[in-house]
Amino acid sequence: MAGKDVPVSPLAPKRQPKVPPIAGVRFATAEAGIRYKGRQDVWFALLDEGTQVAGVFTRSKCPSAPVDWCRENLKQGSARAVVVNSGNANAFTGLKGRDSVKLTAEIAAKAAGCQPQEVFIASTGVIGEPLDATKFEGVLQDCAKRAADGPWIDAARAIMTTDTFPKALSRKAKIDGKEVLIAGIAKGAGMIAPDMATMLSFVFTDAPIAAPVLQALLSKGVKGSFNAVTVDSDTSTSDTLMLFATGKARDVPAITQIGDPRLSGFKRALNSILLELAHLVCKDGEGARKFVEVRVTGAMSSRSAKRVALSIANSPLVKTAIAGEDANWGRVVMAVGKAGEPADRDRLDIGFGDILVAKQGARAPSYDEAAVSDYMKGDTIVITADLGLGRGKSTVWTCDLTKAYVEINGDYRS
Amino acid sequence: MAGKDVPVSPLAPKRQPKVPPIAGVRFATAEAGIRYKGRQDVWFALLDEGTQVAGVFTRSKCPSAPVDWCRENLKQGSARAVVVNSGNANAFTGLKGRDSVKLTAEIAAKAAGCQPQEVFIASTGVIGEPLDATKFEGVLQDCAKRAADGPWIDAARAIMTTDTFPKALSRKAKIDGKEVLIAGIAKGAGMIAPDMATMLSFVFTDAPIAAPVLQALLSKGVKGSFNAVTVDSDTSTSDTLMLFATGKARDVPAITQIGDPRLSGFKRALNSILLELAHLVCKDGEGARKFVEVRVTGAMSSRSAKRVALSIANSPLVKTAIAGEDANWGRVVMAVGKAGEPADRDRLDIGFGDILVAKQGARAPSYDEAAVSDYMKGDTIVITADLGLGRGKSTVWTCDLTKAYVEINGDYRS
Repeated sequence: MAGKDVPVSPLAPKRQPKVPPIAGVRFATAEAGIRYKGRQDVWFALLDEGTQVAGVFTRSKCPSAPVDWCRENLKQGSARAVVVNSGNANAFTGLKGRDSVKLTAEIAAKAAGCQPQEVFIASTGVIGEPLDATKFEGVLQDCAKRAADGPWIDAARAIMTTDTFPKALSRKAKIDGKEVLIAGIAKGAGMIAPDMATMLSFVFTDAPIAAPVLQALLSKGVKGSFNAVTVDSDTSTSDTLMLFATGKARDVPAITQIGDPRLSGFKRALNSILLELAHLVCKDGEGARKFVEVRVTGAMSSRSAKRVALSIANSPLVKTAIAGEDANWGRVVMAVGKAGEPADRDRLDIGFGDILVAKQGARAPSYDEAAVSDYMKGDTIVITADLGLGRGKSTVWTCDLTKAYVEINGDYRS
Repeated sequence: MAGKDVPVSPLAPKRQPKVPPIAGVRFATAEAGIRYKGRQDVWFALLDEGTQVAGVFTRSKCPSAPVDWCRENLKQGSARAVVVNSGNANAFTGLKGRDSVKLTAEIAAKAAGCQPQEVFIASTGVIGEPLDATKFEGVLQDCAKRAADGPWIDAARAIMTTDTFPKALSRKAKIDGKEVLIAGIAKGAGMIAPDMATMLSFVFTDAPIAAPVLQALLSKGVKGSFNAVTVDSDTSTSDTLMLFATGKARDVPAITQIGDPRLSGFKRALNSILLELAHLVCKDGEGARKFVEVRVTGAMSSRSAKRVALSIANSPLVKTAIAGEDANWGRVVMAVGKAGEPADRDRLDIGFGDILVAKQGARAPSYDEAAVSDYMKGDTIVITADLGLGRGKSTVWTCDLTKAYVEINGDYRS
């Protein structure tokens, strides 16, 4: 858990990008003492009137109380505040959990001057411990007073649990020739698997986009990004990805139709920030030393390709081999075989990076152990598997499985 | 890999049971130098004429060449010899793999004085490396000369890869009042997951049971035993479980009908040996320090219960928590939730051993952290999850996930 002497992931970006303010979004962080001592553990954001909202959430059948709350209130499409705390997930806390979320929303609504239904809430941390929402009293009021349009890095830091570095990014895009901005933060770092992870991510834009359009963009954008990363195949009860549009960008026409062609640039920028945020989550996977891209081609369908890709990306034997810098392609074969999807051993090609190691069901004639071994020493490993059956393809991302993962998770609560 | 200084699993039985000879089965082991140096790596068994055979194999879509061979030859129902080697799985070796199996069968058939189609073959070890079957020349001939009715422990030892202890067991049963014997060996120890594992197991009986009956018994018996254990969720390309009946027990009537009521005692004994062999495989899971039983009740169906149970048993976060002796029941909730099966957070009860930790979606009022912590120090951990929805139930077994697992598998080929 954060606060321990876990070193920063070697896959962390060398420098933090500068993330600009988003018009209509102000925030502050605070130390509410939910669980951690001596660090900011609450992030409170205020959104200008008229802000539109979209969200996607965990597919867990046992979602946390905040997830239930957000799903319910998403229907009305507008948002005025966001409260996120780290240290306690308020998941599996029964009736108390619901009461706690309600009280949090009431405290936040009072501080923000809005209705409780316009407050969106996420909690991350330990499951099954009641969350004492009275700790937000005063704290959120104070945050509202101090709220400013940055710095985003503080927000990213306040929502961290086992993350070793904060994740904040931005993109620019044009709608009808006018510039709009997108800024987003995310946290991981275990239980990261489609669909999704205790993975929280909040993305904001000043573009004036109506809630149903936002939702369509987000639901589509999540497929190739947050729903294509996996750290350990475990899915959190609390996964939350929300997209807010304040509409405060100047002179940009309001977008109210899903198929509006003026959205194409925005869509690309949104998908790009979602993908990079998802990659950052992966690169900060618990104990991660290597970032792994798994590209499956030649499957019978893209759905089938994704299942095979996840089977490879989730295989403990593949992941430990990568940790050991061992080009053990036999384990990739194993993972293809166990996926349960159409596959023909004798048509299967497997590569590491650009190096083909197996061709049509046997070791490639050109196989060069030294070249592959050398490749495995890098910090980004690309595994390719061509099934040779059809045109379905899919790419997913993961990290290696190291002793540090076991160490971090064998000792999480103590 | 065997040969390294990996300590014997702390879950290994304190003493090796004595396994009696099975009339009609003789065998020997040898050092063929397939991969390992200075240890027996081949086991060759000769079976008396009339021996009936049944088998179940990996569901991998990329099975090994020996699995293809056994499946094909199982159709005729009779067997005269078994060849098993460790060190090389002869999997994903293309046309060479098929040729290698064929040559092995020919060499074995010559040594055993039978047809190649009556020889059953299994290989375990590294995937993707061609297996040089000419190494069996002379070796199998010599084994045939030395073949004796024991000791089974030598057979169990010769087929080991990363196993830390040999697995050989026996049972007695009665058919129509007459005693019959069952003896079996098995090996694991990674890639252990339904359905099944590189898991090889060979079970022999002197009972006179016809092949179709044997197959029915085995296919049913495997469900609650070998197909209910998982070490790491990875499924091998080589999983093989075979059952041979020599019919040499004295004065026992031949059984030719699947529903024969005289089989009930035999069936119980068979299921019992299959279950204990499967448990031994689990107890020797790579890096295992704790044996874990996951009991799911109250599901909508037994199929649904099994999926939930496997979701718990395969969760890296649950398994690392157990390794850390942490009663982190929140992770059990997470694993129930991610299974995708019907579940209602607010009806869910979770226990460790006899201690109820969560009741109807929240921490149990009686929850006693000290008592649970104490329980977690034991070497056998029972996790119970009652979904409170129906009558479906299922039990599966696994082991914890330790740093030793990562160590063993990050360095397998080197």
